[in-house]
Amino acid sequence: MKLARLGAVGAERPVLLDGGTTYDLSGITPDLDGAFLASEGLATVRAAAEAGDLPEFAAAGLRVGAPIARPGAVLCIGMNYAAHAAESGSAPPDVPILFLKTPNTVVGPHDAVTIPPGAERTDWEVELGVVIGRRASYLDSPADSMAHVAGFVVANDVSEREHQLVTSGGQWSKGKCAPGFCPTGPWLVTPDEADHRALRLRSWVNGEPRQDSTTADLVFGVEYLVWYLSRYLTLEPGDLVLTGTPEGVALSGRFPYLTGGDVVELEIEGLGRQRQEFVGS
Amino acid sequence: MKLARLGAVGAERPVLLDGGTTYDLSGITPDLDGAFLASEGLATVRAAAEAGDLPEFAAAGLRVGAPIARPGAVLCIGMNYAAHAAESGSAPPDVPILFLKTPNTVVGPHDAVTIPPGAERTDWEVELGVVIGRRASYLDSPADSMAHVAGFVVANDVSEREHQLVTSGGQWSKGKCAPGFCPTGPWLVTPDEADHRALRLRSWVNGEPRQDSTTADLVFGVEYLVWYLSRYLTLEPGDLVLTGTPEGVALSGRFPYLTGGDVVELEIEGLGRQRQEFVGS
Repeated sequence: MKLARLGAVGAERPVLLDGGTTYDLSGITPDLDGAFLASEGLATVRAAAEAGDLPEFAAAGLRVGAPIARPGAVLCIGMNYAAHAAESGSAPPDVPILFLKTPNTVVGPHDAVTIPPGAERTDWEVELGVVIGRRASYLDSPADSMAHVAGFVVANDVSEREHQLVTSGGQWSKGKCAPGFCPTGPWLVTPDEADHRALRLRSWVNGEPRQDSTTADLVFGVEYLVWYLSRYLTLEPGDLVLTGTPEGVALSGRFPYLTGGDVVELEIEGLGRQRQEFVGS
Repeated sequence: MKLARLGAVGAERPVLLDGGTTYDLSGITPDLDGAFLASEGLATVRAAAEAGDLPEFAAAGLRVGAPIARPGAVLCIGMNYAAHAAESGSAPPDVPILFLKTPNTVVGPHDAVTIPPGAERTDWEVELGVVIGRRASYLDSPADSMAHVAGFVVANDVSEREHQLVTSGGQWSKGKCAPGFCPTGPWLVTPDEADHRALRLRSWVNGEPRQDSTTADLVFGVEYLVWYLSRYLTLEPGDLVLTGTPEGVALSGRFPYLTGGDVVELEIEGLGRQRQEFVGS
């Protein structure tokens, strides 16, 4: 299934996308959030769809929101593609490296992003995002992980490198939490429709290719990460795990950083495409 | 004013403490959370108290919860006392160092804390916590900060040093987010009743003194921090900012790390006292 949230900021309506038709889910849940996922909402939606019980919805022209409401946590894995670690000046890590974004960075996939005042090193990062569907704490093994995953999303882990790496004392979050710094979506795609082990992920700036890799190259894959994180913190329904970005960002020195008017596009095979205009401040 | 949340986990009732009397706030708000603070709830409570409109509440024997419901973000400042930076092997920072805890670490001030399985370097950190009352984004100056502060709390920024510093790739959050790792409270104290610029803060382990300092020694004070953070992210009502811990933690090498059965107590002048039993796993 592909689920989405359509409408103005703060007034998004939950929908199911099936072929070319959009179905209204507001009779089942007020929103796509942790409470919906924790109450087996995806199974309810699937049953209603199969029974033909969902009303159609006129989606034309509506803004696309993030496909999940504000998460309880946005957990990010750094340096999780070997070639990106190399372009950042690092060796691939021995263990997953965890940092966090504030949950209020999550916005829609096509919302404009404001470059922070004075910032000169704003960068893009296409990432496979994992949405947690069921609480996960001290899982026994990676084989248990997928029972706790609701689905997958495209995310842009927007980063301001000066704030992340220079005026940071070494802790990255300061460059990861500016308003609008986590465009997410367009869809939440359930695991039966996306093989997380081999998804092509790409990004472009002003139509020119930047990143082009596959999740097959992840140092630590989805199942390993969910299990690993559950040993250090409790993952909750609606939480968002960003699995890291592949090579091809501006930090590499091969491309210029973003400036006002630049358009960033990101796509993951089967999960949809984002398009953001970056706005100078 | 001193506000608190009393009752079982997930069923805490909001109250006002005035002298020896506890008043029920559940007729004014279902909870002490961001929505309450954003809607000028503190002013409503103050007016109701002054008018004698609040019913008394029988608090005896009830568990004390965190005095705010789960925040949208827990923002932590590292190395913000010079003597603690020194005992950690660092110079005082030139700028505030930001890292995050997951909001689901926030628990009551007297709740038992489980030492993570296999962990051998679990540590205490008494900290002045700042609760945001009004959204703050790109404030003009530190002089604007206090208009965005709802009040102050005691917090224990519990840390597992191996996970924070060794198996972390240098990013601290992995050792900061285990279940129960942010005991908070007992009270939310409004700024008119606590001078954040000079509060004595102390901790003990099994009755023996550990930390004993004052917020007058903060490298970056409350007003500076709220202004500074607002330039990198949007602070929202209900968010919790932990301002850093003073010297006297186990990381210094002067004291043993926590083991099962240890009792940690923390107190900040005017903000109340915490007591946690640490439980082996």
